[in-house]
Amino acid sequence: MALTDVFGKIDTNLDRYVRELKELLAIPSVSTYSRHRGDVRRAAEWVLNHCKRMGLEAQLHDTAGHPVVTASRCPHPHRPTLLIYGHYDVQPAEPEEEWNTPPFQPTVRDEFIYARGASDDKGQFFTYLKALEVVLAARGDLPINVKLLVEGEEEIGSPHLGAFLKKHRGQLKADAIAISDGAQFSDNVPAITYGLRGLAYMELNVQASRTDLHSGSFGGIAPNPIHALVTLLARLKNPDGTIAIPGFYDTVAPLELWEREAMGALPFDEEKLKAYLGLSYLCEEPGYNALESKTARPTLDINGIWGGFSGEGAKTVIPAKAGAKVSMRLVPHQKPQQIAELFTRYVTDLCPKEVQLQVKALHGAEPVLVSRDLPQMQAAARAIETGFGVAPVFIREGGSIPIVNLFKKVLGLEAILLLGWGRPDDGAHAPNERFALSDFKNGIRSAAALLFEMETCYDG
Amino acid sequence: MALTDVFGKIDTNLDRYVRELKELLAIPSVSTYSRHRGDVRRAAEWVLNHCKRMGLEAQLHDTAGHPVVTASRCPHPHRPTLLIYGHYDVQPAEPEEEWNTPPFQPTVRDEFIYARGASDDKGQFFTYLKALEVVLAARGDLPINVKLLVEGEEEIGSPHLGAFLKKHRGQLKADAIAISDGAQFSDNVPAITYGLRGLAYMELNVQASRTDLHSGSFGGIAPNPIHALVTLLARLKNPDGTIAIPGFYDTVAPLELWEREAMGALPFDEEKLKAYLGLSYLCEEPGYNALESKTARPTLDINGIWGGFSGEGAKTVIPAKAGAKVSMRLVPHQKPQQIAELFTRYVTDLCPKEVQLQVKALHGAEPVLVSRDLPQMQAAARAIETGFGVAPVFIREGGSIPIVNLFKKVLGLEAILLLGWGRPDDGAHAPNERFALSDFKNGIRSAAALLFEMETCYDG
Repeated sequence: MALTDVFGKIDTNLDRYVRELKELLAIPSVSTYSRHRGDVRRAAEWVLNHCKRMGLEAQLHDTAGHPVVTASRCPHPHRPTLLIYGHYDVQPAEPEEEWNTPPFQPTVRDEFIYARGASDDKGQFFTYLKALEVVLAARGDLPINVKLLVEGEEEIGSPHLGAFLKKHRGQLKADAIAISDGAQFSDNVPAITYGLRGLAYMELNVQASRTDLHSGSFGGIAPNPIHALVTLLARLKNPDGTIAIPGFYDTVAPLELWEREAMGALPFDEEKLKAYLGLSYLCEEPGYNALESKTARPTLDINGIWGGFSGEGAKTVIPAKAGAKVSMRLVPHQKPQQIAELFTRYVTDLCPKEVQLQVKALHGAEPVLVSRDLPQMQAAARAIETGFGVAPVFIREGGSIPIVNLFKKVLGLEAILLLGWGRPDDGAHAPNERFALSDFKNGIRSAAALLFEMETCYDG
Repeated sequence: MALTDVFGKIDTNLDRYVRELKELLAIPSVSTYSRHRGDVRRAAEWVLNHCKRMGLEAQLHDTAGHPVVTASRCPHPHRPTLLIYGHYDVQPAEPEEEWNTPPFQPTVRDEFIYARGASDDKGQFFTYLKALEVVLAARGDLPINVKLLVEGEEEIGSPHLGAFLKKHRGQLKADAIAISDGAQFSDNVPAITYGLRGLAYMELNVQASRTDLHSGSFGGIAPNPIHALVTLLARLKNPDGTIAIPGFYDTVAPLELWEREAMGALPFDEEKLKAYLGLSYLCEEPGYNALESKTARPTLDINGIWGGFSGEGAKTVIPAKAGAKVSMRLVPHQKPQQIAELFTRYVTDLCPKEVQLQVKALHGAEPVLVSRDLPQMQAAARAIETGFGVAPVFIREGGSIPIVNLFKKVLGLEAILLLGWGRPDDGAHAPNERFALSDFKNGIRSAAALLFEMETCYDG
């Protein structure tokens, strides 16, 4: 079988792959700093040229921000197409004095490569370039069609990606997207993330009197907006911690048995987590364990609150205004807009008549759940088992990934393959970021295997 | 009767009294600005010299801040002694452009004298100097013993008055203290303030995790300190607005029938107050009207709250900390320390186990209630009726007056005569501060009458 040859060549070439990755890592493509604008473009050009040299058709696209690089090789009109996403920009390296070796002088020691961007995401998306290269070299062609999209603004929230996707919707059509920009569940426990929570983020503003009042002169008759606010906020949850908004849970898809069993089997260390957070107690949802509560169940959190005097000492004021930010993490099949409406109706009904309440929906994101039964997901699972030598676990993440929602919404992609090759302690946004050489190699092997496994996945 | 002669002389001399007051008002004795330090001292010296010229024994006392002027004339070992308090310092005049005539160029128009300090408090305490002068001139002596205490730091919170009173406790011994540094209830409704509310001011701090957490990664298991805080705060009051802290009302002296009748008879315009505050609704305590609720009943207000993200837009954070300031206005016979203890016990018992709560008592003030039946109060009421031509109303104020608590505590004075000659719309801390010439004259008449009326009040 061709894959054996391919894996052999990966072993042979690995030193060269590492040297090439070091070249890319040496470019300080920090997207948030305008002083690095030239470096960011240099990284884009490096990726462009690398793709071209490999025999891909590649282009650099200017945007209102940093460039996007696309590349493709689509020789098979009747075979599946895999879109591969990555980003060549990186987080700032500060505090630089905490790095053992300089962040943009990539260094290998103890079987890890250390540099800013090693894991997030240069090292991870580079695995796909090397997989394509090695498969092309071994076979002369690719088993499926491949498209690449490598952006330079992920670390600043991908502000121009939506517009880019809309403009290039036709060219980016695919049967699945592979994103390797995260981590395995833990060392040697590769994972496929099949669920992301959504978000409904709200702001409340309460107004009482026209101006701040003296609590001596008006205490006892002046409505207090902070009191009105805390009374509302206190009623968002029941005493057991569940969310009190009527209808909030109505559309929540129950956890499936296999999911709960799979989560139960994961090496999740609750004591270690508590120590890390400095907590003696975790607030699980009744009937769900900690891992389920933090990844697969909806939540409500007050993210901020303000009003009146917060300085040192005492000020006897009844403030005119108070406000709060409240957000809810959502799971399928909750809809951000519908949840925002339920929230608004509930707090509006609860609001005491002596104050004015304004409720705004600030931000929403759909929850994502990719069926494990999709042939593309099964293909990815087989590819990882082949590449890492161990079957992946299926996990859900508690946060949202904004680009995933973009790919779903703009490109209509359902088969979203979130395949993190990194490790939770790679230090993605911290000093001494690193990427294990074994993960680099197994990532290339898995990416190569995915090209073969995907051959069986036809759209529709 | 001698008082007829005295009142005749007041009419004769009034123009001179106004000229003299203008001299004092022309000195910009703004205590809060160090650039006016010399002016503040000049005002103190002006008062000192004025007292000396009138035949009082007077002294200027340096303090760690601005000087205190004392004066006395105590020829009657067996008669009562009246201590008179005033302050010669003033608020800043900003915004000066809003004054129709310059704040330190006293101007008479339409029967008002306009200047910073006209009502607060130069014009008001000066009535006592003129009363003493005219009585001395008419009789050759005073019917009682008199002591004066005029400070220069009232507008900055009297930071050195406590130490001064302690040091001079012996010399300041008296049977009553008269303070004219406030207002009548409304035009032509002179008032004696016989009640002040006290204060217990608390701060709460809640800590959950060691650092702020991402709500995607940890929402569903991480305790939220804002949620814990609002849950506590929401339970401080019952749904009807009364205070839910067990024992809070236990020591509250009920309002007496005469008080409620007297308050009910006052020309209190609730609609005007609502319009002024920009409110469609006032939150009275059940069973009490607005005036009773804001002056004679205890309250609880959240004065400030903070925690997490309060900037523009959305930040998905579960904060590590949150806090609030809460204060309670107290009435006799509530004790600030005991109320602080009840508060602390209540919130500590309510606090959910997943967060750490710290409660601090920041500041306390005893409530004040002066019996209307004291002979000194009756004397003051008769003096005002004589001076203003109309009997005063007895009122309670919702705030505290820190110097009153000092006089009670350090000098042990029970007979505190709060006799405001001004009007609520004098603009005490605002541009175009003024003092009605009729109030100035009636104040002098009342102060003179008080010297005679006090003759009947013997200590113990």
